[in-house]
Amino acid sequence: MPITPKILDNPKSDRVRRITDLARAKGRERSGRFLIEGPQSVREAVTWRPDVVQDLYVEVAQALDHPRIVSSTLERIVEASQDATIYVHQCTGDVIRRISADAQGILAVGNAQAMQSDVDDLALDTADYAPRIAAFWQVRDPGNAGTVIRAADAAGCDAVIFVDDCVDVLNPKVIRSTAGSLFHLPVFTMRTNEFFDWTSDHHVDVWAADVYGTEKRKPESLPAVLADKAAVSMSQAVLFGNEARGLEPEILERCGRIVSIPLYGKAESLNLGTSAAVMLMSLAMSGHIERM
Amino acid sequence: MPITPKILDNPKSDRVRRITDLARAKGRERSGRFLIEGPQSVREAVTWRPDVVQDLYVEVAQALDHPRIVSSTLERIVEASQDATIYVHQCTGDVIRRISADAQGILAVGNAQAMQSDVDDLALDTADYAPRIAAFWQVRDPGNAGTVIRAADAAGCDAVIFVDDCVDVLNPKVIRSTAGSLFHLPVFTMRTNEFFDWTSDHHVDVWAADVYGTEKRKPESLPAVLADKAAVSMSQAVLFGNEARGLEPEILERCGRIVSIPLYGKAESLNLGTSAAVMLMSLAMSGHIERM
Repeated sequence: MPITPKILDNPKSDRVRRITDLARAKGRERSGRFLIEGPQSVREAVTWRPDVVQDLYVEVAQALDHPRIVSSTLERIVEASQDATIYVHQCTGDVIRRISADAQGILAVGNAQAMQSDVDDLALDTADYAPRIAAFWQVRDPGNAGTVIRAADAAGCDAVIFVDDCVDVLNPKVIRSTAGSLFHLPVFTMRTNEFFDWTSDHHVDVWAADVYGTEKRKPESLPAVLADKAAVSMSQAVLFGNEARGLEPEILERCGRIVSIPLYGKAESLNLGTSAAVMLMSLAMSGHIERM
Repeated sequence: MPITPKILDNPKSDRVRRITDLARAKGRERSGRFLIEGPQSVREAVTWRPDVVQDLYVEVAQALDHPRIVSSTLERIVEASQDATIYVHQCTGDVIRRISADAQGILAVGNAQAMQSDVDDLALDTADYAPRIAAFWQVRDPGNAGTVIRAADAAGCDAVIFVDDCVDVLNPKVIRSTAGSLFHLPVFTMRTNEFFDWTSDHHVDVWAADVYGTEKRKPESLPAVLADKAAVSMSQAVLFGNEARGLEPEILERCGRIVSIPLYGKAESLNLGTSAAVMLMSLAMSGHIERM
């Protein structure tokens, strides 16, 4: 699609101010748009969700007689965007850097509405395999939220669900931390009751990832659960808690199993991102060993 | 041991400047000391390696008639330090904050020489189980270096070896990122040849963690390796590569196996810290399932 001939060269223009504003929740709410920063995220968005991307901003430098995109990496991303209805705007380095310190020469603006997947489109009941969902309750840190989406993607999860008050998925730091994975699998947001109703309606067992359990129910150890091949091969939503407080007892009581990652050395804990990667990848690999 | 009665209250004093200087490599080299910041790291150092800790700096506030340590968490750390020969210095908040923005009220100064473990003290040959070692080649990012030490600790590894040019283990950011694990298991530094000679001398098989392998040797998938229980139960050093470049072909050729973590979704990669956690924890859990 069209590459606008004019070069955006005024870092103080209204357009630049409006895009910069997408780093803040207010700016995103007001405009219904969000910011995608840097070559990896923009490339994955253009490749997997071109329907979401509206505008692309790329750094050019003045060559002998015409402006040129500053690197072949960025050129390839712009080329890939040409099959879709994405407007490409050439910008000076000053403009790109004014919008974001994390752009590395390229930015995109996406449509927030288009990122809202409908949870009923997840065809869980008709899948010819047992779907697995990664769910996160009250994740507050943007870096953690991005990291767990990336881990869920690597483990081949069918979807991510952010339950209750979590950080905004379209926060630029979340998107950067997903390393493109935000555009690889659907990410839903639900209230706590909605989550348990939905999993129950779809016969998805909820497993809490939790170190402590409740007074009445101590957690099972992950290796013991992995050895239970029948259980692992069923459909699950693995629910992880808040980075500081874990999962509340009332939440744990509603889960089918409580599973903890054993610590073999003297370390007291793993952080949320590492816990999610270890548990989701172990479940995925365990299922895979069975199919070999 | 002694709590110095005088309160350090001058952020510009020579003593404060010398401690602050330990954040830089030059300052550590010159003095042979290093900095431990924050309650978690200081507590683990005092608990597991009191022989290493020389001085403890803790924030006090002036109460009615005498200075008081500002929180019960910090008080407990100071109490724990009293069994060892550790000098405790009371400081104003200004002094603590001048030394480090990451102190949260407590700092310690350690003896770098005392942290140098002798690799011959690792009694691998006489262990009644197969020891596992986590090795990292040319890790350059302090956050990554800390994260992988923490992962190795959680997986119950017997030691960490940093091979070839890696970041200084006593860099404060490395120590913070280990979340105390630096004081839980020995961390050695070796040149590449020294590492392969040492593993060979001690009948420790070296497994490369690598996605690509070489032209002649494609990597085996981790789940397939986990299914080979006899192999998993032997003694290994798992060697991870540089965060950007992985392992060089010449290094891969010297390894007994090349193992890759499968990616089931569309994610292109896992970062070094996550890869280390997934692989080391999987091997640990796999060994544990066998013993159940």
